[in-house]
Amino acid sequence: MFSRWLPGLNRGLATPTGRIAQLVGRSLSRSLQLSSRWSVPELSSFVARTNTCGELRSSHLGQEVTLCGWIQYRRQNIFLVLRDFQGLVQVLIPQDESAASVKKILCDAPMESVVQVSGTVVSRPPGQENPKMPTGDIEIKVKTAELLNPCKKLPFEIKDFMKKTEALRLQYRYLDLRSFQMQYNLRLRSQMVMKMREYLCNLHGFVDVETPTLFKRTPGGAKEFVIPSREPGKFYSLPQSPQQFKQLLMVGGLDRYFQVARCYRDEGSRPDRQPEFTQIDIEMSFVDQTGIRSLIEGLLQYSWPSDKGPVGVPFPSMTFAEALASYGTDKPDTRFGMKIVDISDVFRNTEVGFLQDALSKPQGTVKAIRIPEGAEVLPVFLKANRNWNSPVAKLVMEEQGLGLIRRMENQEEDVVLLTAGEHKRACSLLGKLRLECADLLEARGVLLRDPALFSFLWVVDFPLFLPKEEKPGELESAHHPFTAPHPSDIHLLHTEPEKVRSQHYDLVLNGSEVGGGSIRIHDAQLQRYILETLLKEDVKLLSHLLQALDYGAPPHGGIALGLDRLVCLVTGAPSIRDVIAFPKSFRGQDLMSDAPDFIPPEDLKPYHIQVSWPTDAETEKNSLNPPHHPES
Amino acid sequence: MFSRWLPGLNRGLATPTGRIAQLVGRSLSRSLQLSSRWSVPELSSFVARTNTCGELRSSHLGQEVTLCGWIQYRRQNIFLVLRDFQGLVQVLIPQDESAASVKKILCDAPMESVVQVSGTVVSRPPGQENPKMPTGDIEIKVKTAELLNPCKKLPFEIKDFMKKTEALRLQYRYLDLRSFQMQYNLRLRSQMVMKMREYLCNLHGFVDVETPTLFKRTPGGAKEFVIPSREPGKFYSLPQSPQQFKQLLMVGGLDRYFQVARCYRDEGSRPDRQPEFTQIDIEMSFVDQTGIRSLIEGLLQYSWPSDKGPVGVPFPSMTFAEALASYGTDKPDTRFGMKIVDISDVFRNTEVGFLQDALSKPQGTVKAIRIPEGAEVLPVFLKANRNWNSPVAKLVMEEQGLGLIRRMENQEEDVVLLTAGEHKRACSLLGKLRLECADLLEARGVLLRDPALFSFLWVVDFPLFLPKEEKPGELESAHHPFTAPHPSDIHLLHTEPEKVRSQHYDLVLNGSEVGGGSIRIHDAQLQRYILETLLKEDVKLLSHLLQALDYGAPPHGGIALGLDRLVCLVTGAPSIRDVIAFPKSFRGQDLMSDAPDFIPPEDLKPYHIQVSWPTDAETEKNSLNPPHHPES
Repeated sequence: MFSRWLPGLNRGLATPTGRIAQLVGRSLSRSLQLSSRWSVPELSSFVARTNTCGELRSSHLGQEVTLCGWIQYRRQNIFLVLRDFQGLVQVLIPQDESAASVKKILCDAPMESVVQVSGTVVSRPPGQENPKMPTGDIEIKVKTAELLNPCKKLPFEIKDFMKKTEALRLQYRYLDLRSFQMQYNLRLRSQMVMKMREYLCNLHGFVDVETPTLFKRTPGGAKEFVIPSREPGKFYSLPQSPQQFKQLLMVGGLDRYFQVARCYRDEGSRPDRQPEFTQIDIEMSFVDQTGIRSLIEGLLQYSWPSDKGPVGVPFPSMTFAEALASYGTDKPDTRFGMKIVDISDVFRNTEVGFLQDALSKPQGTVKAIRIPEGAEVLPVFLKANRNWNSPVAKLVMEEQGLGLIRRMENQEEDVVLLTAGEHKRACSLLGKLRLECADLLEARGVLLRDPALFSFLWVVDFPLFLPKEEKPGELESAHHPFTAPHPSDIHLLHTEPEKVRSQHYDLVLNGSEVGGGSIRIHDAQLQRYILETLLKEDVKLLSHLLQALDYGAPPHGGIALGLDRLVCLVTGAPSIRDVIAFPKSFRGQDLMSDAPDFIPPEDLKPYHIQVSWPTDAETEKNSLNPPHHPES
Repeated sequence: MFSRWLPGLNRGLATPTGRIAQLVGRSLSRSLQLSSRWSVPELSSFVARTNTCGELRSSHLGQEVTLCGWIQYRRQNIFLVLRDFQGLVQVLIPQDESAASVKKILCDAPMESVVQVSGTVVSRPPGQENPKMPTGDIEIKVKTAELLNPCKKLPFEIKDFMKKTEALRLQYRYLDLRSFQMQYNLRLRSQMVMKMREYLCNLHGFVDVETPTLFKRTPGGAKEFVIPSREPGKFYSLPQSPQQFKQLLMVGGLDRYFQVARCYRDEGSRPDRQPEFTQIDIEMSFVDQTGIRSLIEGLLQYSWPSDKGPVGVPFPSMTFAEALASYGTDKPDTRFGMKIVDISDVFRNTEVGFLQDALSKPQGTVKAIRIPEGAEVLPVFLKANRNWNSPVAKLVMEEQGLGLIRRMENQEEDVVLLTAGEHKRACSLLGKLRLECADLLEARGVLLRDPALFSFLWVVDFPLFLPKEEKPGELESAHHPFTAPHPSDIHLLHTEPEKVRSQHYDLVLNGSEVGGGSIRIHDAQLQRYILETLLKEDVKLLSHLLQALDYGAPPHGGIALGLDRLVCLVTGAPSIRDVIAFPKSFRGQDLMSDAPDFIPPEDLKPYHIQVSWPTDAETEKNSLNPPHHPES
């Protein structure tokens, strides 16, 4: 788990406590760097300490200081290393008789106890400086000490924490939070959000409006948590996004809205998803796609941590069709090549059965990707030296083989993967293989995706509708039903709606979707036509929104950035759980407090609900974790 | 409803549209003032307009501008007044033949339609300037116009909206939001919060941490909404505050935490309460009461809107005992006097029966308040001219009468109200009468409470425990069980716990509680003793917190400010619903979308719950609004 963070660490530093402490020291000095970039906050205002442990330097020599922190390390009852959120500092334990009580406090306190010490900042003896440690020139000659709170024997050592299972980390999250990674991640998150607010609020006049989370079910809101109210049979829903509210705020003339919005989605157990998550939610009146894109490019540029390098703008842009054709996905990782190539024409006259089959169909294609130096990692199909290694090799005519090599620009040791079939399926398959191969190559030491590179991309011109998976004859919204159609395609709405492109845009970073939005429909009639006629939705649930559009709704559009995912990518954390203070497990549980939990039936009475306990048969059929009935 | 806002308006301004528009104009110029105080945001970046309607001045003369806005008013097809969030501007409708199409667009569009116009900023003809309107020197000579969205016939006129019932305002909230009051309130709220964030994050190094809202029930959490999970019988709860999380963050070494936190409380129907509300939630390590108080005084001073006058610090402070004795409440309105006076000694030898009775009891007291000029509004009991007007007058001896007059410093026309009984009850009664009398006096035109005055007060030294209302032999926490006892009273914890004062503090503004907090218990043993032995709570629900305190928890404390209430007092709004974009009605309903709503039984299945429909008898007994069963 460490390895993911290491590439980001760019300065050496050593402390007396070995490798782990080095990492802590490095990170804390990074976190100091973070805060000092934007302003110089007073970190010791209003409290007992005069300074933080990590801020002391030679310039403080001779000063009387009071520090509060945790005992990170103790050596031979002579030195202590004291830690706070800002860093580490060495403390000299007094050895003379007159200070016996101070010595006793500092030597008896278990590791991770909290102490307050007062003393003088002194130079380390010549030769004992530690030039790689920010506080390495000085130490604290302690005069008084107080044990503020002792620490019981820990369930594990803090410094080894990251080697523990994630379940243990989550159970003792309050200890895990002391780790340098979590401190760094949470502080970086806070500062990025603060900069975003400054950009939106102070530079561009956005209004931070809080919208309700106790709301009404939205059509098709099967993933919305329900909250029973005190009115029998009536429920609130926790919204998946403030979509309706942000549009209503535009109708209300708010002009520019943003919110760091808590959103909810009940997807059951899914790895790397959280039942509650946060999005930077934005909506503007009188704006078009270009406007929203410039706004977001400026926002990310402004809020980007300085130690992550500058963000180049404008971000490149790609149509959905192009993304699918070249990368087999709507969220291409553009940090590396290996694009999909259509080689249908090369095989127009092939004798290979599955290629023939595929090409004989109206949508049939043959597609390929070239894996540079892929011979290292893959059983080879086609190599540039014509040493064909494939069961179908003998059926490939020499002309076609040469054509393929030419088209794919094959080099020795490269591997070409090809597939045949309908365009979308073929691309999608190769898109997945492309990422798998990249993983394989990187596992073998080939650097394809520079971890210091942040490759943003806009994907645009999505289809407005998709055929329903269960009933392909019917349409559903590709994103949501408030998305405006592309102006060039409006004429198709009544004739060939499936061909209409939308004004939706996605923001992709290193192959992950970090944002999405659209220009919305502001015409009530068009909105009603799409909901009722094309999507066959029950518009009763949305009557307030339709009505609002009728009362002078301005043209408007917006976007939402997934904050957890974004910060996860910025910090290089392995999981979004590492950028959330108290995340749920993949089963939606809080392993620290054991939520969700049983509730006595009498507490459900005011809400007019009761539990329908599943029968044993149902339990076996439906559930991996059988319910434990409370005593009843 | 207007009257509450009027005293705050401090600049004259007139527009062509009469009194209501004057108010709109005034407010919008106030809102402009607000934003320009803190920075000069670019309000027209990224969008179709070049300028906002409200910002145009003589300095823009000759400029070609494009504006987007709502048609506020049209006069004789010659003038339009166009409105956006920033203000109003006069638009000249072109009258020449060549611009017939522009004229048609602008003259045909119904009021509140959204239009985009382009044209030149020109001077108004001499004599037609409106010096009281910010844009009153200029007007727009329009060249092109586009109807962006027409407005249907409104259910009421926007300008009259505030005269409508609140239910109608909430049903059409998106229209209500266009009113100057709502724009002003929401923008002021956004800007105050932004300043608070700057103060906490940029000036004092606080970390903004988002804590979960899907959590576990807290002990005694009867007011917590429950959310069924997909595990049969298990529920999340929506927390009333991030109390546990903020303390765990301190254990985790975060040092300084804040969050603008959404909180939830299910109190059924209560006027001026919302089921979801927002608090500025703060926690610090190594801090004492003085530290928190200075922090908050600085915070309010820094974030206070400039048009509301400066905030004087430090705020005065009063013990709970003093507040009760002098004001009969724990949240005294210190903008005016009329304090409670103990006059027990005056009546030590009284012959008045109920006074005799009261004073003969161990806790018996006689208390009084003097209502200056109260004779105007009250049936008089005792007047300075000795014209006793009371059924007990004949029993009051002259000496006592004189003593009373002297003690209360009675003037002619003053009224003294007195009561006798146990100290707390007597004070509490007079405290309520004090506020009632203030209302009566002000209704008669006597200015007691200056609406421009903001009178902050700390109330401290609350009792740590109170006797349980149902079982007076048992104790419950006066605030919450994590509150630390007062250091001077710790020795009483094992002997007379009911006498222990706490380290809780409340912040009171103009007689409303706007914040509260405490220094917390960081000693696991003390916390366990209070929970188990004194409060008889089930500590299982809190085992994670108790365990955390054992692992090197730093001393810590914090506070939460009620943002809705605070902004309500700052803006002078009649209700917290006027500072929330989409509030619930007092019955917890969203009148716009009709939430909460019925949900089909199949959507409840994944959550293993079903509705327990009340029988008709129960319905009659328990409910004011009988449930309407959905078709079933």
